[in-house]
Amino acid sequence: MFSGAQFSIYPMTADFVPVIIDSIAALDAHGDKLRRETDDLSTLLVGPPDTIVQALRDAFVAAARGGAHVVLSATLSRGCPGEPDDPICTAPVIPPLQPGENPVAASLARYQPGAATDVPVTAQISLYPLGTDAHMARIGACIDFLKTVGVFDCAKHFCSKLKGDASTVFAAIERAFIDFAPPSAHVVLTVTISANSPSRA
Amino acid sequence: MFSGAQFSIYPMTADFVPVIIDSIAALDAHGDKLRRETDDLSTLLVGPPDTIVQALRDAFVAAARGGAHVVLSATLSRGCPGEPDDPICTAPVIPPLQPGENPVAASLARYQPGAATDVPVTAQISLYPLGTDAHMARIGACIDFLKTVGVFDCAKHFCSKLKGDASTVFAAIERAFIDFAPPSAHVVLTVTISANSPSRA
Repeated sequence: MFSGAQFSIYPMTADFVPVIIDSIAALDAHGDKLRRETDDLSTLLVGPPDTIVQALRDAFVAAARGGAHVVLSATLSRGCPGEPDDPICTAPVIPPLQPGENPVAASLARYQPGAATDVPVTAQISLYPLGTDAHMARIGACIDFLKTVGVFDCAKHFCSKLKGDASTVFAAIERAFIDFAPPSAHVVLTVTISANSPSRA
Repeated sequence: MFSGAQFSIYPMTADFVPVIIDSIAALDAHGDKLRRETDDLSTLLVGPPDTIVQALRDAFVAAARGGAHVVLSATLSRGCPGEPDDPICTAPVIPPLQPGENPVAASLARYQPGAATDVPVTAQISLYPLGTDAHMARIGACIDFLKTVGVFDCAKHFCSKLKGDASTVFAAIERAFIDFAPPSAHVVLTVTISANSPSRA
């Protein structure tokens, strides 16, 4: 199994370089649980799916606390058959759904938003379960989860818009990425998340 | 058939609002071939797949010509079974591949980069053919096309990095979006494209 993310931080300020560097420094809290690599377009994180999302939250919150309008854009991927297995990606085993078990209820039981960050965000996410003709059913179950957990704002073409404290939105994204396809399946999730926007509704 | 994109322009400058507004104004050149809708996170374009990519090019080039470091991030989608058919999305019919026909050669024959923009860019794209277990083969053919046409820079985890004049990179993205799955298939393509980066290699 291989899992990770490519992410970028976009601070809408002329002084964008230190905001990006401080944001990436926030990843240090995850120590050697993640491997990372930065080029001119994005930073790669390789590690367990849950740690990946928590690290994105920490990087984004560090950037947003500077006060500038800032956006994080990320592509998260797990189970790609073209990627090599990597021990750093080993995640806690989640029991497979039993016949008749409700995926939304199972996911809600694992949802752990933790302490509020006091960083309100808007976001939009898309889930792509690949290699299966069951992708629309899985996306539908994920949207039901987002509604039930309270972060769903509205449907948009090609994505779901979310809002809430960064803690709740990233915790919901963590479950969306992990829970709505089998553990070994190839799944991609894309996210755009924004703070301090002057046009925020 | 429904096709469109959600896109965002991120100018790394404190004076980001006029850059975004000028960029969106560049879409006017496409008149009533596109429907559009903007909120605090992104602008939706609905229209034919080829026009969608050409409009993204025009919006990005307008933003980049201002000189600030600017990034466009977009999700393009066609054929989503959850979206309604819409006449505005009607595109020129492309003959289906014949048995034994090479998809890369067929795509190369339709590649039309047009005049150079003199805006050099770096980009990364991912193609997601959905609802099929043939997705890795289709992605592989698309990467072969990107290499053959000369915009491929290198492989990254989860995406392909591209470089070149904006005209060639967007023309290649147009073909990548249209040519590597059947006309009615559900396909998503994501792109991150950057100009004027201080860290550009």
